[in-house]
Amino acid sequence: MQVWKEYIDQNKDRFLEELFTLLRIPSISADSAYKPDVARCAEAVKQSLIDAGVDKAEVCPTAGHPIVYAEKIISPSAPTVLVYGHYDVQPADPLELWHSGPFEPVVKDGKIYARGACDDKGQMFMHVKAFEVLSRTNTLACNVKFMIEGEEEVGSSNLGTFLEQNKELLKADIVLVSDTSMISMEHPSLETGLRGLAYMEVEVVGPNRDLHSGVYGGAVANPINILCNMIASLHDENNHITIPGFYSNVAEMSTSDREALNAAPFDLEAYKQDLGVKDVLGEKGYTTLERTGIRPTLDVNGIWGGYTGEGAKTVLPSKANAKISMRLVPHQSSQEIAGLFQKHFESIAPDSVSVKVTAHHGGEPVVTPTDSVAYKAAAKAIETAFGKSPIPTRGGGSIPIIALFEKVLGLKTVLMGFGLDNDNIHSPNEKYDVANYYKGIETIPYFHRYFAEMSN
Amino acid sequence: MQVWKEYIDQNKDRFLEELFTLLRIPSISADSAYKPDVARCAEAVKQSLIDAGVDKAEVCPTAGHPIVYAEKIISPSAPTVLVYGHYDVQPADPLELWHSGPFEPVVKDGKIYARGACDDKGQMFMHVKAFEVLSRTNTLACNVKFMIEGEEEVGSSNLGTFLEQNKELLKADIVLVSDTSMISMEHPSLETGLRGLAYMEVEVVGPNRDLHSGVYGGAVANPINILCNMIASLHDENNHITIPGFYSNVAEMSTSDREALNAAPFDLEAYKQDLGVKDVLGEKGYTTLERTGIRPTLDVNGIWGGYTGEGAKTVLPSKANAKISMRLVPHQSSQEIAGLFQKHFESIAPDSVSVKVTAHHGGEPVVTPTDSVAYKAAAKAIETAFGKSPIPTRGGGSIPIIALFEKVLGLKTVLMGFGLDNDNIHSPNEKYDVANYYKGIETIPYFHRYFAEMSN
Repeated sequence: MQVWKEYIDQNKDRFLEELFTLLRIPSISADSAYKPDVARCAEAVKQSLIDAGVDKAEVCPTAGHPIVYAEKIISPSAPTVLVYGHYDVQPADPLELWHSGPFEPVVKDGKIYARGACDDKGQMFMHVKAFEVLSRTNTLACNVKFMIEGEEEVGSSNLGTFLEQNKELLKADIVLVSDTSMISMEHPSLETGLRGLAYMEVEVVGPNRDLHSGVYGGAVANPINILCNMIASLHDENNHITIPGFYSNVAEMSTSDREALNAAPFDLEAYKQDLGVKDVLGEKGYTTLERTGIRPTLDVNGIWGGYTGEGAKTVLPSKANAKISMRLVPHQSSQEIAGLFQKHFESIAPDSVSVKVTAHHGGEPVVTPTDSVAYKAAAKAIETAFGKSPIPTRGGGSIPIIALFEKVLGLKTVLMGFGLDNDNIHSPNEKYDVANYYKGIETIPYFHRYFAEMSN
Repeated sequence: MQVWKEYIDQNKDRFLEELFTLLRIPSISADSAYKPDVARCAEAVKQSLIDAGVDKAEVCPTAGHPIVYAEKIISPSAPTVLVYGHYDVQPADPLELWHSGPFEPVVKDGKIYARGACDDKGQMFMHVKAFEVLSRTNTLACNVKFMIEGEEEVGSSNLGTFLEQNKELLKADIVLVSDTSMISMEHPSLETGLRGLAYMEVEVVGPNRDLHSGVYGGAVANPINILCNMIASLHDENNHITIPGFYSNVAEMSTSDREALNAAPFDLEAYKQDLGVKDVLGEKGYTTLERTGIRPTLDVNGIWGGYTGEGAKTVLPSKANAKISMRLVPHQSSQEIAGLFQKHFESIAPDSVSVKVTAHHGGEPVVTPTDSVAYKAAAKAIETAFGKSPIPTRGGGSIPIIALFEKVLGLKTVLMGFGLDNDNIHSPNEKYDVANYYKGIETIPYFHRYFAEMSN
């Protein structure tokens, strides 16, 4: 569409500058110290939607961080697209590894560097700008609703309630989300599934105080050693997870589906080189694409205990802690796996320590259908913008709320992500390619058009 | 000796107040931020020795923290006691677990609470005050030399050079040290051996940056999981250490010596209750007293990696670290064990990570003879002051320098400690019983007298 292209060209610099304004707000949802920034970010998102041409926009308070809702209804008979995204970001530490400030966005070598550049401010804001393009060129074909939350990085704990309380308001035909990645600009792809998540925190307590490791060492259980033993025992020698019942509900993929999955362009040597590792490591019997796409995993996300300062301290600490998360696949249930983990972890603790297991947020795995009108509209939009039809892939990450959209609102989701796996999301030097940002803004209007056309 | 008793009684409160002055100085040798405090503490120790009546006292600079040397020579024909102690202390963290400030000494329920109260300012200062008693009552029977260092808690790395360079100055007949513990006031004891130490720091590096655990989890080695596996593999199911060659030079104790060791008063139920643990844990085939006295051990003193803040972060971190120390027994060598550890730890790392192993300070195990004049003088001094002869025990801790006294100066050491195992040394709420402090000041003069008598 020439008119879209022209509008984007004329407003390119402003589109980038407006994203930068959002990226400068440290909307870290996990850390309560940033609560005012999260609130400020919600207001900024609302204002950007008003500026883009919505009829109505509001910041809706929740028990946690607020949700921004906005809508533009063009006709009761037009199909409705519900755009979901999030304006909160992951914590930025370790700060010392960032080349530039996490909340001081810069463009370097064609890439926007900032926390949230890709996940998800950059991708979410493409929808705001794509909507502006449609709105300002009078080419809207669908009704559009926006639901942009501030708790995605902490498990969307209040979005479920919001869905339940606003079923009428949120009525739509499809949920459209850009919070995932594609293979590359040369190999555009569409994700057809996401892993679920169970995120646990464990504490192993030994003696009632820190002890001198000389006086007591060898006779009293050391909580760090015990925690290491317990964590090590969670995988067997083939990297299978040893929690009883963990695999019971895992959907095994057919041979032909596995073949299709492994047919996606993937260069193992380039992958290893990019990560700087001599070898990959994972569950025996599965390829790297399978290990991250269709198999459940268990990773320690953080561990701490004892003396971690400069020099040496001969302490036998009273306790040790870890954050441990599991990625889940269909048809595992987050709550059930959290329960199995807790039961197992408590059962393997020796008598010489006590163990406390708590669950952080979880999320259910999802598979999105490839035969739906929405998927076909998304595929055609990508084909139009990229000149190539997208490869269906399975994503390793989790967006806990996707499963809830179906459960509460009865809505399917299209995962139209424009990120790249090397965008360093959740890591220092998160980036988003400027080209991908603009390509997203170019592609999204086609989705709206094709979805309207195909829905009739 | 009535005259000693009277002098102590008359100066009791001042003896305590003077110790408090020392305890108020945060002389943490491991943390370079406290370097000025360590220097200030050395000056304070020197001044206290001058005030107590030495002929000569000086603060001797080293490549690290200074050593305080002082002496009082009464006669060339009298035997010479070299008192060794240290004025540096362990770091005070975790600060939030202290009931009162670590450097704001208080007496509560008859106990002095402060970092260094027992280890070793309190015990070292007993010798300064005992010397004052002898000096001011004109009852010195031995020449006395003091060597009080500021790097014991970081491996005494510069004391060896000091010994080498001052062999003449340090000529003596025995080294007397109070930096260990006894069983209880009811069961006074003398330590006849100390464990050695090898202290290592390890780093496991996986991918070249922190990764999103959803996108990469399951396919890329997680350094925390790998570190846990590696640490867990350092012990077998019987809690034997699996490092090849680790036990090669361990001196096995005779059955009768083991029986004697186990005859010391020890109440396992009270021990467990004091520590708040349901069960003890250690090497199969050995008792708790053996596990802490005559067997080598391996403990993780600190571990860190990934996200350790509030809430949940789904990171697959680039690296993980741990501090791991081993307590050694005769005739293990600290350097050899450090080498074996390094070689083994590097050998068990999978190809998917790289490993860096560095050694902190070490120390050699020692055994002190019980048939020497000095040991007999110490035993008689304790018998006189406590009304009971001391039980010979084997200490689990390490004083790396003791082995060097013999190697460089040709001197044996008497370990006349007045601490208790529950003094929380190296832990929050370190304490030293006021009664033990005064009992030490009362006992030490007898050692000087008996050592002079028996030496003739």
